[in-house]
Amino acid sequence: MATFAPTPRTTVRRKPTRGVYDRETVFAILDEALICHVGFNDAEGRPVVIPTGYGRKGERLYLHGSAASRMLRSVAEGIPVCIEVTIIDGMVLARSTFHHSMNYRSVVIFGTAVPVTEEAEKFEALRIITEHLVPGRWADARVPAPQEMKGTAVLYVDLEEVSAKIRTGGPIDDDEDMDLPVWAGVVPIRLVADTPIADDKLRVAAQVPDYATHYKR
Amino acid sequence: MATFAPTPRTTVRRKPTRGVYDRETVFAILDEALICHVGFNDAEGRPVVIPTGYGRKGERLYLHGSAASRMLRSVAEGIPVCIEVTIIDGMVLARSTFHHSMNYRSVVIFGTAVPVTEEAEKFEALRIITEHLVPGRWADARVPAPQEMKGTAVLYVDLEEVSAKIRTGGPIDDDEDMDLPVWAGVVPIRLVADTPIADDKLRVAAQVPDYATHYKR
Repeated sequence: MATFAPTPRTTVRRKPTRGVYDRETVFAILDEALICHVGFNDAEGRPVVIPTGYGRKGERLYLHGSAASRMLRSVAEGIPVCIEVTIIDGMVLARSTFHHSMNYRSVVIFGTAVPVTEEAEKFEALRIITEHLVPGRWADARVPAPQEMKGTAVLYVDLEEVSAKIRTGGPIDDDEDMDLPVWAGVVPIRLVADTPIADDKLRVAAQVPDYATHYKR
Repeated sequence: MATFAPTPRTTVRRKPTRGVYDRETVFAILDEALICHVGFNDAEGRPVVIPTGYGRKGERLYLHGSAASRMLRSVAEGIPVCIEVTIIDGMVLARSTFHHSMNYRSVVIFGTAVPVTEEAEKFEALRIITEHLVPGRWADARVPAPQEMKGTAVLYVDLEEVSAKIRTGGPIDDDEDMDLPVWAGVVPIRLVADTPIADDKLRVAAQVPDYATHYKR
């Protein structure tokens, strides 16, 4: 199916025209963003949010690192999560403070984070996560050794209950404010990568790879 | 006190040397980042994470917008939240995939989000949030009218249980990997603002303000 079926939790209620449910748009946002923000409950049922890297393969999102280890501390068989990803595209300066806004593309996922236990899938998940963060890197770097695989927690979340929310364009002011002597418009915002900095412990005469020199999201 | 007292929840356990508790560092991260990620439980106790703008005044963080309205739907007298803010500074390319990382500065806040009801504080909170997003803007734009104030939900969270986590510098590879023929280093990442785009409905001959032309975080 080309779109995610909206559920009570994923139906965008505030500014519903900004809600987007088609897979292509959702996947494009997930693939462009760098990190996600994983919400879950601790053992006492209190909310916790942790930023972490991730990667997507088809309808499955993979997480690892500190989020995984903290979540796995308490639960081994799956834990309810809300995963949020946001890209900021601009600051929207309206004539009134009330209509100030941001241009953004965000995705919210409700699901269950489950540990990846099968060795081959775990290896593939680490490839997916590495390639998400630095496309092209997996082919160059040393792949995980068996003991490193053991020391890495990887979780997956199936993408089923998902929606995106997008704002684009200029400010929307009230008619009676249109003649105020105030500049209005958008300040575009984006992530850029600067010239790569070689590790000062680099012993080999390795060239800076293209994917580092031309890194972009 | 110059530092936040670590609690069981804010003590950085994974990579504890990256934990930072001094107010100056925490406040600098909060003041530089654009948005925060607010985690709370819905009426069924399930985790929800919402991105939103915010602003800080002293030891108090103010939130408004969709997070506030969604949270206020269910609870009027305060709701436990976890607020996370993250700035990505670089992609860390190690010789082994296992040691790949990011340079980042993040803050996690545990607290209670409480509606701001006093009119003067609410007005000031809106100023703080606007000035956080676009410093200098409040003096130019039309300030909130009484009916706009009514239509805006604002919450505050007192900064008491707070910690930061910071990673800087190059990759840390294992000794036995140091001679691998692989480039290693950091790709620096930052947010930039491009040339402001005037609203095409701009009727007045207003100059682009300096804070828009030279917008930066």
